[in-house]
Formats: sequence, C-alpha cells, structure tokens
Amino acid sequence: MAHEFRMLHRVQFADTDMAGLAHFSSYFRFMEATEHAFIRSLGHSIVMWERFKVGWPRVHASCDYTGPLRFEDEVEVRLRVLEKKEKSLTYEFVFRRLRPEPVLEVGRGRVTTVCVTRDGSGTMKSVPIPEEIARLIEAAPPGA
Amino acid sequence: MAHEFRMLHRVQFADTDMAGLAHFSSYFRFMEATEHAFIRSLGHSIVMWERFKVGWPRVHASCDYTGPLRFEDEVEVRLRVLEKKEKSLTYEFVFRRLRPEPVLEVGRGRVTTVCVTRDGSGTMKSVPIPEEIARLIEAAPPGA
Amino acid sequence: MAHEFRMLHRVQFADTDMAGLAHFSSYFRFMEATEHAFIRSLGHSIVMWERFKVGWPRVHASCDYTGPLRFEDEVEVRLRVLEKKEKSLTYEFVFRRLRPEPVLEVGRGRVTTVCVTRDGSGTMKSVPIPEEIARLIEAAPPGA
Amino acid sequence: MAHEFRMLHRVQFADTDMAGLAHFSSYFRFMEATEHAFIRSLGHSIVMWERFKVGWPRVHASCDYTGPLRFEDEVEVRLRVLEKKEKSLTYEFVFRRLRPEPVLEVGRGRVTTVCVTRDGSGTMKSVPIPEEIARLIEAAPPGA
Repeated sequence: MAHEFRMLHRVQFADTDMAGLAHFSSYFRFMEATEHAFIRSLGHSIVMWERFKVGWPRVHASCDYTGPLRFEDEVEVRLRVLEKKEKSLTYEFVFRRLRPEPVLEVGRGRVTTVCVTRDGSGTMKSVPIPEEIARLIEAAPPGA
Repeated sequence: MAHEFRMLHRVQFADTDMAGLAHFSSYFRFMEATEHAFIRSLGHSIVMWERFKVGWPRVHASCDYTGPLRFEDEVEVRLRVLEKKEKSLTYEFVFRRLRPEPVLEVGRGRVTTVCVTRDGSGTMKSVPIPEEIARLIEAAPPGA
Repeated sequence: MAHEFRMLHRVQFADTDMAGLAHFSSYFRFMEATEHAFIRSLGHSIVMWERFKVGWPRVHASCDYTGPLRFEDEVEVRLRVLEKKEKSLTYEFVFRRLRPEPVLEVGRGRVTTVCVTRDGSGTMKSVPIPEEIARLIEAAPPGA
Repeated sequence: MAHEFRMLHRVQFADTDMAGLAHFSSYFRFMEATEHAFIRSLGHSIVMWERFKVGWPRVHASCDYTGPLRFEDEVEVRLRVLEKKEKSLTYEFVFRRLRPEPVLEVGRGRVTTVCVTRDGSGTMKSVPIPEEIARLIEAAPPGA
C-alpha cells in the first residue's frame, strides 16, 4: 500500500507572471500532475471511467505559499495521503525548491478529491472508491 | 448571414509572463473566446454534440505579434470569416489595443476549424457543417 | 470605504477539462480577476510598483467546490474583504452560477495577499499597505 | 553548433479540454518549454536580461494539428533551427506521439522569436543576437 510519492517539476515561462514569480494558480497544476503520477505509479490512470465508471472531482484545494518560485527553478513536490475515506482521498503536498540552492520549502498544499459516478442525466453522486484502487492506497502514518 | 464579430478582452494577471507582456499563447485563448461568442451571437453553442453530433477540432492556428499587450490593457478582437468550406471554417482575428491609447494593432491571427463526427471507437471524421449552422455564416467580402 | 465587489465571468472552453467541468485551478483565476477588478473600481491598479513600490504576492489561497461549473456557464463571483490588517488583505469569494438556472452556489474561496516591497537584491519584505490604498478598503461587516 | 533538440512531454489533465483532447493552445506551451530546454542545453537561460540586456518576444507562432493528443499521452517534440538571422531565430517543432502506440505525428509548429533590448521607457528594439549565444546555434541543414 502506497502513501507517498515525489515528483520533480521545473517552472516554465508560461507559469510565470509579470511579478517574475510562478503564478499562484500554477501550484495547483503541479499538485495535480503529482497526484496523477502517483496514481500511474500504482498501475492505474486517474481517468478510470471506462473501467470503473468513476471520476474524481475536487471538493477542496488550498495552498500556503512560503517562498518564491521562479522561472527554471526545480521544485520537488512530495505527495502524502493525509486521509483515506470510503469515498474520498485527501492529499498533502509539500513544495521544496531544490534548485537554485539553498533548498527551501516554498509551499504546502492540500487537495480533497471525491470518487463519483454519474447517472444518465450527468448528475454526480459520490460512491465508494473501487476496491482495486482502494487496496493500493493507505493514509500516511502521522509525522511521516 | 454573419461574417464578422467583435469582442473586447482585458489582459488578466494570469495572462502575463515575467517579461511583463501577455504570454504569446494567451492570444489563442482570446481568439477562441471570440470565436465562441460569435457562435453564441448566432443562437448556438460551439458545443453542439447533443444536437448535431459534431465537434470542431482545430487543424491550424497562427498568430503574428506586432505590438505589446500588457496587464489590464483592453484589446478588441475582430473576427472575420475568411473562408467557408463544406466541412471547415477559417477565421481571421485582428487584435487592436484600445487602452491605453494610442489605439494600436498588436496582432493578427488565423484559426481553421473542421466539423467532425466520431464513430463508436472515438475516431474523428470530417463531415459537412450542419445546414442549420452553415446557413448562418458566410465568408466576409474581400477587403471588408 | 469599499468591502464588496461583484464580477460576472463566463466559463471558456480553455477553462474546461476532459471531465467536462471547469478545471479546479480556473476558480483561482476567476478569484484573481475579480480581486483586480475590485482594485480598479477604487481607481487603482494592483500593479502599483511604480507609484508605491509595493507588490502583492499571495500567502494563502483555497477553494471549496460545491457544484459543477461547465462551458459557457455564467458565474457571478462576489468578493468580500474578510480581514484587513496592516500589511495584508484577506478576501472571500462566493461563486454563484447564474446561468443555466437554477441559480446555484458552486464554490467558495479565500485568498490572503501581502503587501511587500523588494530590496536591491530582489528579496521581498512585508510592509504596511500604502495609506492611499488602505483608506479605500475596509473589512466587511460580519454576516454581510 | 547546435541545430536540433528533442524533449518528451506528457499531456496533463489541465492541458485537456471538454472535447477530451489536449487544448490547441497547449501545443504552444510545449513548443516553448522545448525551446527553453534547448537554450539550457547550450549552457544558457532564455532569461538573459541581466547578462546580455536582451529579451526574446515572439513575432510569429503557428501550428498545424494532424492527429489527436490525449490525457497522459507521451509526445516527443523535436525542435529544429529553421532559420538563424542576425536578430531572430525561427524554430520548427514536430510533435510525435510515442505512447500510446502506434507512433503518430500529431502536429507541426513554428515560432519566430526576435532578440530585443529595451530603452529607458520600456520600448523594445531588435538588436543582434549576443555573440556568445549566436556562436552556439546554427540553422539545421535542409532535409535534416
């Protein structure tokens, strides 16, 4: 059972804004790319509609920004499974800028995503995480 | 029959990059927003799958950048239907910065979009533009 | 003194993702566009470096998603000043989908932004909000 | 002297749109990320203002889309220097989807970028490419 995953990102020019920093919304794209790579590392794709008839909309996303992230910076995003419920997963993401040095924590975010199915009219309804997925993921031990 | 449409946009902070300009990819989002507003002005939505079983992927997009566009600038995008074929439409877009003055042409782009349907396996195939849409659109007269 | 502002947005095609919804990161761009329109409504631009030598990086951003937002939906974002401190502002944003009906609250977000200056080396340091700006903004009364 | 570079990209969820494809504007971000990685491979950063007092705005960008690109697809972008002039560079980009198989060319784009400096008022003016950069880059041989 997995509860942690790390992914390295590089800040691209299109991520920057006129203040010379990575735009604050880009952190959420980094979190999502990391989450989806985590699911791939388990042998699945987050797009699992055909196989399991479920999707994963978000119900919460947040980020605290604690340091600057600039063009071409290399940032490691560490995902931890904070909470695993019957129908949802909550991830924590810690952003550590590796280059340029010194290594610096530049942000900390959280995303809660719910497992849903859709009825014929397109209305979403939360459902239990498919067993085949649920058995691969566990909450991280406290303090890990 | 319509062949022209104008839409006013404001450059947002998220559109800018660290050079202090609207990122070059943002012009394509402005073009698309204008195109879709043009279709709405005809009483339709570009998302017409349910009604007509067609979609509109792009086969070409281009832009020449002739002046700077900055945060909070107001830019008018003028769409003209450059070519109307049985299965495709080509639009031209002229970007005129209205504020701050002086008024300045800052770009000129082009998008060709094809009317397609999908078979059961998801493969796309070009098809004639639905009559109900085609009869609302005409190519702009030369030099208009 | 102002403490509230409303802005209407339309979900664009580029805001959507393959789940057919507005991507969760797009809510943060809607919040920011509303915040910056609020500052313009006070006669200023959030880009006030030349005039006041300050910028406004974010230290926190969050959003709870409570309903779906889809292509071409019209969504009103209501900004309220939740907290005004000497060196920071916290905004709350309520997302109400106006079209298609029925009117529905689809999200609620929060952004804290800090007033900073930069020294010669580019290091940011929080400073009091310029008096000319601070006197135009007040915290919203509770329950407003 | 270098005239070619390859970079592998993966289509992220935020790159997709409700048609289930990578949004057409995302190809331009892939081109730019590849261009900037090419410059890094030469030991420089495209952000070279401090060192050379020049920037690189685009004057032209275009793309022909010849096949679908979907979520999690792996796409190799091959950059070739099409033209090297005294004050500008034109790149060609060929998009080859490597996964899922079969390998398929899905697009072909072009970007022309001009070397500019800015005077005190911020006005941009094209200038010769810095010698230290120019001597590292050459046009690709025809048919390469």
